[in-house]
Amino acid sequence: MSAFVRSEWYAIARSEEVSRTLFKRTILGEDIVLFRTLAGEAVALRDRCPHRFAPLSMGTLKGDTLECGYHGLTFDCAGRCLRVPGQERIPPGAVVKSYPVVERYGLVFGWMGDAALADRAELTDIAQYGTPDWGVSRGYHHFGANYLNIIDNLVDPAHTSFVHRRTIGNTAAEDIVIEAREDGYTVCAGRWVDNAPPVPVVQRFAAPAGMVDRWQLYYLKVPSVSWVDFGSLDAGSGHTPEAQARAPYRVLSYAFLTPEKVGATHYFWFQLRNVAVDDAAVTAEFEALYRATFDEDKALLEAIQRTEDRDPGLTPVRIASDAGVVRLRRIVERRLAAEASSIEAPSRG
Amino acid sequence: MSAFVRSEWYAIARSEEVSRTLFKRTILGEDIVLFRTLAGEAVALRDRCPHRFAPLSMGTLKGDTLECGYHGLTFDCAGRCLRVPGQERIPPGAVVKSYPVVERYGLVFGWMGDAALADRAELTDIAQYGTPDWGVSRGYHHFGANYLNIIDNLVDPAHTSFVHRRTIGNTAAEDIVIEAREDGYTVCAGRWVDNAPPVPVVQRFAAPAGMVDRWQLYYLKVPSVSWVDFGSLDAGSGHTPEAQARAPYRVLSYAFLTPEKVGATHYFWFQLRNVAVDDAAVTAEFEALYRATFDEDKALLEAIQRTEDRDPGLTPVRIASDAGVVRLRRIVERRLAAEASSIEAPSRG
Amino acid sequence: MSAFVRSEWYAIARSEEVSRTLFKRTILGEDIVLFRTLAGEAVALRDRCPHRFAPLSMGTLKGDTLECGYHGLTFDCAGRCLRVPGQERIPPGAVVKSYPVVERYGLVFGWMGDAALADRAELTDIAQYGTPDWGVSRGYHHFGANYLNIIDNLVDPAHTSFVHRRTIGNTAAEDIVIEAREDGYTVCAGRWVDNAPPVPVVQRFAAPAGMVDRWQLYYLKVPSVSWVDFGSLDAGSGHTPEAQARAPYRVLSYAFLTPEKVGATHYFWFQLRNVAVDDAAVTAEFEALYRATFDEDKALLEAIQRTEDRDPGLTPVRIASDAGVVRLRRIVERRLAAEASSIEAPSRG
Repeated sequence: MSAFVRSEWYAIARSEEVSRTLFKRTILGEDIVLFRTLAGEAVALRDRCPHRFAPLSMGTLKGDTLECGYHGLTFDCAGRCLRVPGQERIPPGAVVKSYPVVERYGLVFGWMGDAALADRAELTDIAQYGTPDWGVSRGYHHFGANYLNIIDNLVDPAHTSFVHRRTIGNTAAEDIVIEAREDGYTVCAGRWVDNAPPVPVVQRFAAPAGMVDRWQLYYLKVPSVSWVDFGSLDAGSGHTPEAQARAPYRVLSYAFLTPEKVGATHYFWFQLRNVAVDDAAVTAEFEALYRATFDEDKALLEAIQRTEDRDPGLTPVRIASDAGVVRLRRIVERRLAAEASSIEAPSRG
Repeated sequence: MSAFVRSEWYAIARSEEVSRTLFKRTILGEDIVLFRTLAGEAVALRDRCPHRFAPLSMGTLKGDTLECGYHGLTFDCAGRCLRVPGQERIPPGAVVKSYPVVERYGLVFGWMGDAALADRAELTDIAQYGTPDWGVSRGYHHFGANYLNIIDNLVDPAHTSFVHRRTIGNTAAEDIVIEAREDGYTVCAGRWVDNAPPVPVVQRFAAPAGMVDRWQLYYLKVPSVSWVDFGSLDAGSGHTPEAQARAPYRVLSYAFLTPEKVGATHYFWFQLRNVAVDDAAVTAEFEALYRATFDEDKALLEAIQRTEDRDPGLTPVRIASDAGVVRLRRIVERRLAAEASSIEAPSRG
Repeated sequence: MSAFVRSEWYAIARSEEVSRTLFKRTILGEDIVLFRTLAGEAVALRDRCPHRFAPLSMGTLKGDTLECGYHGLTFDCAGRCLRVPGQERIPPGAVVKSYPVVERYGLVFGWMGDAALADRAELTDIAQYGTPDWGVSRGYHHFGANYLNIIDNLVDPAHTSFVHRRTIGNTAAEDIVIEAREDGYTVCAGRWVDNAPPVPVVQRFAAPAGMVDRWQLYYLKVPSVSWVDFGSLDAGSGHTPEAQARAPYRVLSYAFLTPEKVGATHYFWFQLRNVAVDDAAVTAEFEALYRATFDEDKALLEAIQRTEDRDPGLTPVRIASDAGVVRLRRIVERRLAAEASSIEAPSRG
């Protein structure tokens, strides 16, 4: 069974990384070269010439074609070979894998599975993104840790009281029980805290007159999309989506996790906030805060990865706050098993 | 069969390394976290939370308990879990391995075998240590070499003429035959040189009136304690322990070797001298001399380790001066075999 | 089957690297120590004492003998042990492998196969080297690439149009078909371009009055000797060796490839030119040009090596310009198979 779910839109680059200069990134253990056509469309090809395996990223972009830097084999955006210098015939194997691409949310997403199954509608929809009511802060981390350990962490509100004591956590929530539920490929873990005084950040940006109900919900769409929905309402406004949509303070913190290889993960993140939307200083403040927070996760998760690499057979002792973790690991297993059986199916018939 | 003898007190840290700040060290391939209780006792725990394997050294010392930095599981000095945030029940597997500890000679020793077998009386006794008649110089080296190659070297007086030509060796002794004998787990190789002029260091510190008898005896208690006993007496004083105890010049050079992992070893060392006992300049001089000497061993032994790692099947050609080496390798085999059979015994019954 | 042809003279050092100071280099995965006798002869011994495997390069050169830095075992230039300190008898296994050596072309060559089969006549003969009619430029590269990928490149004129666009290549030759042929262990790929205007370098150094015939022939004697013969004649002078010998402009570019280990190769190179023979500025210019050219090859071949190391089963798609490559890979297989069967033969009889 593969280590990775393949039938998925994975974030592979930030929009600004993809240009007329060839850009290389490794995803799911595959080297990919990215560029833009003359018309500005992002293109993703396997970064390996089928002739002698030279990285195409060491070649030359000529119009909308890519010329290998070793012997000049030239490919179009679909990976078809257009030219082999010194001969007329194009050998049938002279093909480069091309990845379906969608560009949204300032990110270039690539479909890593069977191209025939790529459906843009499956890309997570974020209605708030790009509307004038929401400000955006963003960044990128590289984690020397397997994506499984990272998604564990992202559906586990309990860790914030300890890992993020210096940034976003606090000790008050240490003993609050977390509920977890699942819906399709998505796990949600979180809680509502009702009729409480506003936390400092809410006080600062929304200044409510009295007590508030606040929520903190961790969503993880297996295997690669995480969002944390945090907000605050006047006490008694109700726990409905409609009430949440009218909240005076709300932050949606997204992370797109893309395995680089076993044991290393690209971590693309942004936050949407409905306060101080156009304030560049607040954007910078959010970016610094989340960068520091993810640095804390990174240090811990990389240490755990080193331990697991050295002692591969370790079995965790489960505790109550693992409710979400256990669910999402089961969904990962289910997706991997489904992909393995669909790959094996043809040979059975 | 394990690569290491486990039923042993191994030096794991210098006393000054262990404090109220968590200190991490790898011993026999296991990560260990060390700290002192409020009362000042050294504590050694496995540096790995049983829940999600976070290093406890990234956690927080609270009084005499250690709180994990990931989800706040809290352990006492015996490794028992006292608290799991978010739940009342302590899962039975929530236990951290605790190592029996003894602190002596400015070092913290840990017992790496079955805790029920730990006997403080087995720790090597050094009667001279800490008495006013003996000065101490000390230091630490990390060797990128297996402990077996290092202990070979420490029961092999013949190498000093070649490896330490620039420091403690000299060519005069190149061809003197070395006698080796063993007693329990201890091998001794060395010689007496009788009725000879004093060597320069004896001349400097003891200034004997005439000829001297001098001894150089290399002791190695398998697998981890080395001491070299060097001294000088007026010629004809006899070769007895009583005579040695009255020698005007004597240096006992101790080394405690602790495998970090296969191919790397912690090397804790100190010398006791019965001359210039309180002279800080002489202490500094000894430390510099032995540091340079062990640097020479380190360079050579690390080169040999690289060769053995690349060509694992190499068999040494034995020479006469290997008498001690052959004996100690046999004792290592005997100890490892004994531990392997005692571990297997229960499953046989 | 071994990864390397062993019955071969391999360049192991530049003459100036071998002196009265011990010099260490790894060849075909074996550490070798090199030095000169008092009479100036180059000597190559296995860099590993048979006693405890200390590198002899950490020892001491005493006259024409080499003393191990660990216990003083002393060896002569043939690898025979002359002395074991502390004993009279020399153990029969106390022998160090000695490599037959020839020094030519400013290089020290060693025979890596059975010493009984070493024949100096098999070393590639270069008649022009050292004569007053030829100037020499030279250098050394280390490639983090298998020798097979490098020799591919050296019998493949087609790559110059793409890899060396910034140095020695040009786009005009991109589509000219290359002919390949073989003779014994030697493959030749190349072409004549007849009745063409002189290229800039020929114009500069030979200033022909009219049109020229020029040749570019890539020779590769499997597994380790490469030479590129480039020259220019007045058009219609014929394609004979005699005509080539009278050419007003000719450069012979030699490379001696010596595997360091699987995946890494020493690359010793020089050029012979029949123009501006004594001009030091032209020598420096040639050295800079070829250094830059081989840097381009190195960057590309090391990237390919990384890809092949990660995905070991890759099969190239063959194109027409691979004609020489296919031939030389067959010769390598033939030589390796021949060596494997000659090693196995005795055990069959």
